[in-house]
Formats: sequence, structure tokens, C-alpha cells
Amino acid sequence: MTIPFNILLFEDFETLDALGPVEIIGKSDLYSLRLYSPSGGVCHSKQGISIETEPWIHMELDGVLLIPGGQGTRTLVGDSCFIAALREHAVAAQYILTVCTGSALLARTGLLDDKRATTNKRAFAWVASQSAKVHWQKSARWVVDDNIYTSSGVSAGMDMTLGFIADRHGVVAAREIADQIEYLWNSNRDEDPFAVK
Amino acid sequence: MTIPFNILLFEDFETLDALGPVEIIGKSDLYSLRLYSPSGGVCHSKQGISIETEPWIHMELDGVLLIPGGQGTRTLVGDSCFIAALREHAVAAQYILTVCTGSALLARTGLLDDKRATTNKRAFAWVASQSAKVHWQKSARWVVDDNIYTSSGVSAGMDMTLGFIADRHGVVAAREIADQIEYLWNSNRDEDPFAVK
Repeated sequence: MTIPFNILLFEDFETLDALGPVEIIGKSDLYSLRLYSPSGGVCHSKQGISIETEPWIHMELDGVLLIPGGQGTRTLVGDSCFIAALREHAVAAQYILTVCTGSALLARTGLLDDKRATTNKRAFAWVASQSAKVHWQKSARWVVDDNIYTSSGVSAGMDMTLGFIADRHGVVAAREIADQIEYLWNSNRDEDPFAVK
Repeated sequence: MTIPFNILLFEDFETLDALGPVEIIGKSDLYSLRLYSPSGGVCHSKQGISIETEPWIHMELDGVLLIPGGQGTRTLVGDSCFIAALREHAVAAQYILTVCTGSALLARTGLLDDKRATTNKRAFAWVASQSAKVHWQKSARWVVDDNIYTSSGVSAGMDMTLGFIADRHGVVAAREIADQIEYLWNSNRDEDPFAVK
């Protein structure tokens, strides 16, 4: 039995926010990767990549949910239907991972209330403005609070996903994946070269 | 006028080999990104991602051609029709970039003959066996020889693409992209932590 690793896409998501974690999770035989979007069909990244998705009503809920960031989050934070449906899917997930401004979407569901979280440091003020109830961290490559992982911008999602693998299956398993893809893993979640001053 | 940046996909390409460079090139307004495959339509990565492509007969030739690696290269090296068509496209390109085992495909076209090149270090022996006329480098994050850039495994493609930007448009432009995506760029192409012993 593999664990569902569900990635939620939407129009104008940031390519690497989703596809970096795909590369890493795709190297583990413990997970089954699936891509979803609200209505299914082809989703376009901000960088113009067209990717096939399934509609999220088909999502197996009892697994991991990853929410990327990107330009598309700027409108979705104000879409109450989307946020309500995201809340339903997120509540049912065992673990929730966000990359970059994906944490703005999760913040709008209320599920980050009273929790520590982070985001892209260049978009920090905007993301933080989405909820005053979240303890936004100005310096962190990624943050873990309870079952929620939130990462800094774009490529930090790869470091966080390796950190998630390390927490669940041991650091040796994470290192093996990093070595396979010749990735220099920034494994210290507290070390943030892009921290907000 | 933007410069065409053409990425060639095929069945069982490695996700990040192609999508890492997409993230980086997508941050530059000097290039227009396009994805192609031999017959067009949906291409599936080894990690199960389904991406739309155009048929490569529609490719604008006078630009950059990036060839990813992945499991799919294992059969394509023996496909003489594919290799002949790849040669035609590569000859016409201003610059050719390969990631991971993508250099095995380029080696089969003969265009790497007498040139220095590298590849994924875990697949080194297999790639090197594709052509004895190439000066295969056992230690290099990426290699530049004339108009051909070849990188090490998977994530090294991101470092090489930033290196390509630096060579063309200056290191400040490359750093700005790396900072935007919070990527810790391994900017020294000769420093290879995964070198073949």
C-alpha cells in the first residue's frame, strides 16, 4: 500500500513549486503521486507548461496534500468557494505541505491559525497580510508545526520535501534521493539565506 | 524579439531535467519557452507527469535546444530515425544544452565528437559507452565546449542553466533569477560533489 501524495494545481501555479517535489517523491516507492486541480483537465503554470490533472473531487483524502504557490494564488485567496473546498481537502489530509505563496492559500482556510509558518521572502508582506492569526516566520528555509510543513520560495520546496522524507523515513532515505538526483540538499531548515531582514 | 528556448521531451524523460531549466528560463523575458516531442501531444515523464508538447517539425530552429535525460534515453540511443532527426535539429541550434543522460542522445548524433562533455555520474559508464569519440569528464557540475553545454545529473541542469544565463547576459542576471526562486546556485562548474572516483 502506497501513501497518496496529492499535488493541487491551479492556473498560473509556479512550475518548480510543484515539479521539484514531484521529482523527489517520484524517487520513493512509498508514495503514489497524483496531480489534481479544482475542475481537472489541463492546468497551465506561470511559465507556460500545460499539465494534465484530475478533478480534486476524485482525490484520495487520507494522504499528503501539497499546495504550490505562484501568481495564481493572488486571485485564489479571494475565492471563497475555492478556499472552502481547499479546507475540506486539507482537513482530511494526514500531512499538508505548502511551497512559496501556497501558504497564503492555506492561511485563508484558517488551518494555520496559531501555527508557525513561512513563505517566499519576497512575497512575505503580502502573504502575512492574508491572516494575522498565523505566526509568520521571517527566517526559515521551511517550518514544521504539527502536521503542516510550509516552505520558503520555489526551490525551498525541494529542501522541505527532502526534510519531510527524512522526518518520516529517516535521513538516510532523504540523502539517497538527493544523491540520486545530484541535488545539494540544504538540510538545515533554520538556515535561511533569503530571510527577511 | 525573444530567443526560442526549445525543450525536447520524450516518453520517460526525467521531470526535473526539463522543468528545472523551465523555471529558470521562465524568469527571463529574453527567451520564449516551447516544449516539443517527436510527434507532439502529451508526453509522460518517468515520474508520471503528463505534459503537452508540439511536434518538433514545428520547432523554430535558430535558438537554444535543451535535451533532458531520463529512462527514455535508454531506448532512444538505439533509435536511428530519432537520432538522425535530433541531429538535424541540433545542428541548426545556436546553443545546445543537455541535462543528465541527455548527453547520451547528443553523443549518438556525432555532434559531441572530439568535445568535452559530462553526464549523471551514476550513469557515467553507460553514457560513456555510447561514444568513444567524446572526451567524457568524470568531474564537472557542467561542461561548456564551443556552443554545447552538458550537465551532470538532474538538479545540475538548474546550475548549468543559470551558468548559461551568466555566460550570455552576465552573472548579475543569473544571480537575480536564483534569488527570485530562492535557489542556492552552485555556480562553480568545476566543483562536483558527485564526481566519479
